Amino acid sequence: MAHRTSQDIRFLNRFEVMQRFYADGGARTRQELAAATGLSFATVANLTAELIDAGVLVESGRLESGGGRPRALLAVNAERGALIGVDVAETSVRTELFDLTLRQLHVMERPLPADGVAPDVVVAAIEAGVDAVLAATGTPRERVLGAGVSVPGLVEREGGVSTYSPYWSWRDVPMRSLLAERLDVPLHLDNPLKASTLAEMWFGGGREVDDLVVVTLRAGVGAGFAIGGTLYRGATNSAGEWGHTCLVLDGRPCRCGSRGCVEAYVGTRGVIETLRAVAPADPLAHLPDDAATLRSLALRAADGDSVATEVIARTGRYLGAAVGSLVNLFNPQVIVLGNQVMEGLGEQLLAATRSALADHALAQPLRAVDLRRSALSHNAVTWGAAAFALEGFLGDRELFGSVSRTRAARSRTK
Amino acid sequence: MAHRTSQDIRFLNRFEVMQRFYADGGARTRQELAAATGLSFATVANLTAELIDAGVLVESGRLESGGGRPRALLAVNAERGALIGVDVAETSVRTELFDLTLRQLHVMERPLPADGVAPDVVVAAIEAGVDAVLAATGTPRERVLGAGVSVPGLVEREGGVSTYSPYWSWRDVPMRSLLAERLDVPLHLDNPLKASTLAEMWFGGGREVDDLVVVTLRAGVGAGFAIGGTLYRGATNSAGEWGHTCLVLDGRPCRCGSRGCVEAYVGTRGVIETLRAVAPADPLAHLPDDAATLRSLALRAADGDSVATEVIARTGRYLGAAVGSLVNLFNPQVIVLGNQVMEGLGEQLLAATRSALADHALAQPLRAVDLRRSALSHNAVTWGAAAFALEGFLGDRELFGSVSRTRAARSRTK
Repeated sequence: MAHRTSQDIRFLNRFEVMQRFYADGGARTRQELAAATGLSFATVANLTAELIDAGVLVESGRLESGGGRPRALLAVNAERGALIGVDVAETSVRTELFDLTLRQLHVMERPLPADGVAPDVVVAAIEAGVDAVLAATGTPRERVLGAGVSVPGLVEREGGVSTYSPYWSWRDVPMRSLLAERLDVPLHLDNPLKASTLAEMWFGGGREVDDLVVVTLRAGVGAGFAIGGTLYRGATNSAGEWGHTCLVLDGRPCRCGSRGCVEAYVGTRGVIETLRAVAPADPLAHLPDDAATLRSLALRAADGDSVATEVIARTGRYLGAAVGSLVNLFNPQVIVLGNQVMEGLGEQLLAATRSALADHALAQPLRAVDLRRSALSHNAVTWGAAAFALEGFLGDRELFGSVSRTRAARSRTK
Repeated sequence: MAHRTSQDIRFLNRFEVMQRFYADGGARTRQELAAATGLSFATVANLTAELIDAGVLVESGRLESGGGRPRALLAVNAERGALIGVDVAETSVRTELFDLTLRQLHVMERPLPADGVAPDVVVAAIEAGVDAVLAATGTPRERVLGAGVSVPGLVEREGGVSTYSPYWSWRDVPMRSLLAERLDVPLHLDNPLKASTLAEMWFGGGREVDDLVVVTLRAGVGAGFAIGGTLYRGATNSAGEWGHTCLVLDGRPCRCGSRGCVEAYVGTRGVIETLRAVAPADPLAHLPDDAATLRSLALRAADGDSVATEVIARTGRYLGAAVGSLVNLFNPQVIVLGNQVMEGLGEQLLAATRSALADHALAQPLRAVDLRRSALSHNAVTWGAAAFALEGFLGDRELFGSVSRTRAARSRTK
């Protein structure tokens, strides 16, 4: 069984207070933080004192209260250091530099070769990207509090190993070891699904809820879970591989080797496959660029084009059935739908999905769930990768709470 | 976000220590408890002192250690009180009385009418069952520490309301209010899926793991989750409604009104439906008793009967595809398969399921998971229902840790 320590609670409460600041970037009084988190004023006072000592929060002003003492306004200290988020995608490596308020300072995107990319090519692209964003902003490397790197596929997080990446058939690539000396900053490795989910938890639809499902719809398809306010990882950090859930037994072939998987219907290629089924001769069905195909489909559907409308209706029907199962299984408070397919087909797909969902989800959990599009104002993967670095920094035992650390060590000999 | 308090940790650690005793019923030294739980000796000494004060644990002997002081052996005090578990099923109400070691003292099963059972009939059957097991064992009512009642369908736990029960089309039946005065013992209401999952967590395959899925296969089909050693309930306590996951889009009609649901293939009726598809004229396909049909099927398959073998093979194929999705989504350490269908078709179905699973689960989470049949020595639902009462008793704030209660109250004003 999992042990929870008072140290864990302290971390979680610290994260929770910090999340209030990322909701809208505004300053907060301690009273507002207590009201928003449900923590006592005394606990908030302790947590904010620690965060001010560590230079993470600063007093940014005072709020006059009717007659009483003015209340201090606290804000995240943007200058405390920088965070890096890296999104290794199928065709490019995107590297972004953020200040501690998670405001983007600089971005650098470098294309990858079309096929069979070797690990050293990706490592070199990440190194060049990091060097470039630091140089462009004049940020000394020692001001970087951490870098989060998202690599597609399955990731063994503690060791920083890409255990399996389907794009390039990587197996057991020790990314952290390869990157450690070249980057010389604290490194946090995970995959796009986990990064997108963390981004929703910190900056998006998951800020206010305990139980959240984040459905990512791009070439690959996933369902990230936050449970009790914590990212759920499973036994070997591969939880959320929803794309290979069987939706249609013996249905369409999937690139995973099986048939009828969710991804084969609602991933980018799945949508184009549906287009080919609806209108085999349509020129749109044979464009090389999937993202452009999705955008053209949406434009045609908005014009009332019957082929495009039918493709979106069918995709919504598949997605509604698949998401209905998530509603029944998880009974979540919020489901966020995001990424290319959703960005491309937008409100029309959401409406078709909602309608199909009612045929598949049970009435009670359906009433309890809020299904919405992602409203993140920024690239979910790089932002979430930077949030991994932020969490790593906020969990630093050297910086925070050495007293409770000693206590925890004393009470636990194993 | 969920708040965790030091009080929560204390509860969870208390549960964890107690679970060691239910593993095999044997006595334990504090040293063994510390080694088995990973808690420090000091923490175990505190927790056991509290449990001894409350009369839950007793010293049951001494263990001579080579040269050193003899170590006290602790055991659960069977005489501390009694627990009741009630399983309201489609055709009967089963009531069991247990001592605090969860040993069964008496059982009473009362049939229910065939159709349209009204709440007062069930309430009367529960009352009569409880009266009967207490009378038969000479147990005074004030010795009952709590009763867990499992009602099929969706249950609103805090209020003790059966919000929807498909068997009898109950809606919003206030079971706790109806039962409270008649039983006059602390009541804990939930459904068979949650009870079965809790039974595996306390007494079965979940004792040693954090992340567990319990698949229940009877008339209804469910998947209960333990996450981080805690039963996962979802936003409105309906998590785990796996039976209505879409397995075959536009497939067999399901009693929920949708089509192609998992339950329509691997629930009791689903197996019989498959038998009808394989051999429409087979007399076994038209017996009135589903459980007897399953047993006959298994006997015939053991004799090499081709119809029975084909039915089990197909059912394993459906179950493997459906369970494969759970493996991909949850990446659990253990999946336990249980209840009538599994009891009926046993090892043959398990083997067919394992074989199909390899076609649907991703390699990495498949390697991480241990798929097994339930090995509970007792009725999962009544045992789990009694475990709800045990957890309620062990979480009693009047009995345990009034000091930490005061501390928790002080640190949290809301």
